[in-house]
Amino acid sequence: MTNFSYAIIGTGAIGGYYGACLQKSGKEVHFLLRSDYDHVRKKGLMIQSLHGDFNLPQVQAYQQAESMPTCDVVIVALKATQNHELKNILPYVVKDDGVVLLLQNGLGAEAEIAAVVGETIVMGGLCFICANKIGPGQIHHIDYGGITIGQYAPNYKACGITVEMQQVVEDLNEAGLEVSAREDLYATRWEKLVWNIPYNGLSVVLDATTREIMADSQMRSLVESLMQEVVLGAKACQRKIGEDFVRFMIKRTEQMKPYLTSMKLDYDAHRPLEVEAIFGEPLRVATAAGVDLPQIKMLYQQLKFIDSRQKI
Amino acid sequence: MTNFSYAIIGTGAIGGYYGACLQKSGKEVHFLLRSDYDHVRKKGLMIQSLHGDFNLPQVQAYQQAESMPTCDVVIVALKATQNHELKNILPYVVKDDGVVLLLQNGLGAEAEIAAVVGETIVMGGLCFICANKIGPGQIHHIDYGGITIGQYAPNYKACGITVEMQQVVEDLNEAGLEVSAREDLYATRWEKLVWNIPYNGLSVVLDATTREIMADSQMRSLVESLMQEVVLGAKACQRKIGEDFVRFMIKRTEQMKPYLTSMKLDYDAHRPLEVEAIFGEPLRVATAAGVDLPQIKMLYQQLKFIDSRQKI
Repeated sequence: MTNFSYAIIGTGAIGGYYGACLQKSGKEVHFLLRSDYDHVRKKGLMIQSLHGDFNLPQVQAYQQAESMPTCDVVIVALKATQNHELKNILPYVVKDDGVVLLLQNGLGAEAEIAAVVGETIVMGGLCFICANKIGPGQIHHIDYGGITIGQYAPNYKACGITVEMQQVVEDLNEAGLEVSAREDLYATRWEKLVWNIPYNGLSVVLDATTREIMADSQMRSLVESLMQEVVLGAKACQRKIGEDFVRFMIKRTEQMKPYLTSMKLDYDAHRPLEVEAIFGEPLRVATAAGVDLPQIKMLYQQLKFIDSRQKI
Repeated sequence: MTNFSYAIIGTGAIGGYYGACLQKSGKEVHFLLRSDYDHVRKKGLMIQSLHGDFNLPQVQAYQQAESMPTCDVVIVALKATQNHELKNILPYVVKDDGVVLLLQNGLGAEAEIAAVVGETIVMGGLCFICANKIGPGQIHHIDYGGITIGQYAPNYKACGITVEMQQVVEDLNEAGLEVSAREDLYATRWEKLVWNIPYNGLSVVLDATTREIMADSQMRSLVESLMQEVVLGAKACQRKIGEDFVRFMIKRTEQMKPYLTSMKLDYDAHRPLEVEAIFGEPLRVATAAGVDLPQIKMLYQQLKFIDSRQKI
């Protein structure tokens, strides 16, 4: 076990749950909060989890990054739509030889973070978790919880499994979390898009749960066709996703409980949608590589319309 | 002016308005009704029109096709989703040397009708009209009103402008309607799809008016891309639609009042959607000709999902 200190940037469902697990396991954790700051400073965090409920009556809570100590590992769990704020946060909280771990879906944000933090190691993590914030400082962890982590290198070159990745994975494992390291962050992100693009997109456009989507033969066919376009996009970026993986994602989703995707939860809560990270950036890199993804593009355009209407 | 007698099969907004105009101009008109039969038999039809309101206190109303006299021209103004009923209606109402005129959007229904009525002439008409039924026997004609008519020949071969077409057009013109004859019915149907496919589809999937769609840059781009797929579909069926036509449709729609498409009106009224006529059949003939229309296909699948959910 390391003696790393942790900062949690964005104490919503994801940041709050993983940060609480780390603190419970004995780690020093510092939480950056916005709307829930007063409540959490006084009352701490309450976690309802399928692995057992627990409270942390005292947590180190901060309203501003400037007030935080520098930490060995900075976990970013903001929505991708808030990433423009990171340039005003990360320089205050990450140690010179520290690590930034971004827990977000979509493509491209590690490159932006690397531009802010220079030589600091940047990692990306894909969370397979169903969790909601149900009140100030109150998080309901409903299902799943695993994280797959990869390390960023310029141009998303695969960079294998580093010592620092092993250390972070070890800490998270000791906090009771199923976390694994992957050699190629970009491949891992494209694989996650195989699920995120059809289900996040269609659940918002059609106001549907994953179960409603999988129960309809037209939707199953469209889901598979969208997944095949993701595979084409990945291929354009020199990442191979096999047919088996697509079939596995469909089968796994069929067996899931009815599930509201993260984008549907954002939509229902009137939050901005992570359209650019999950749809816009994959489309841009595929287009730059000369590959046309017409159905993903149409879903992107429908979501942009829905997202801009919601802002009015 | 001919002495043709007319039957109106389906006295909703379209059939009611055109039939009333024909009767007002002195024609013998027989109306087949379902839910409004009692009301219309007693009280007739009331038309509120931008060209002037008028009432027809007495109309010849029927509840069953078997009770109707055979007529020279049978105007079918059912929803395309009701076309399976025509085989039990048309044999009773059309004269041996009569004409069936189908007023519907979409592709393929004339071939089905020809299979029912044998040697009888079948024509198709595309209506450019904004009209709603606002109560039993009460129709609100809001805007436009023109019809473009073509004649059906096996395999949708273009068959020019026949004497019978000229006669029907003459009758409708004398009823105050802007009606024109076209040499190639199939080309006319594909042209109408250039408008119907993007606007009918997106207005239902995104719950939007034509104006909201045209005010959004992503939607304008998607509309144009869908129109280009319709052009490809038409080309696969040996019908050429020029770039000018696409640009004209977009420009015309920008200048329209905010407009709920016919499919959106059907959706809001919980009626079955004409998905197969407007989307399914064009996709099937394009696929049979070896052409892939991925965005139209996706819109079709989304609409099928919405339509089937509405039926539950």
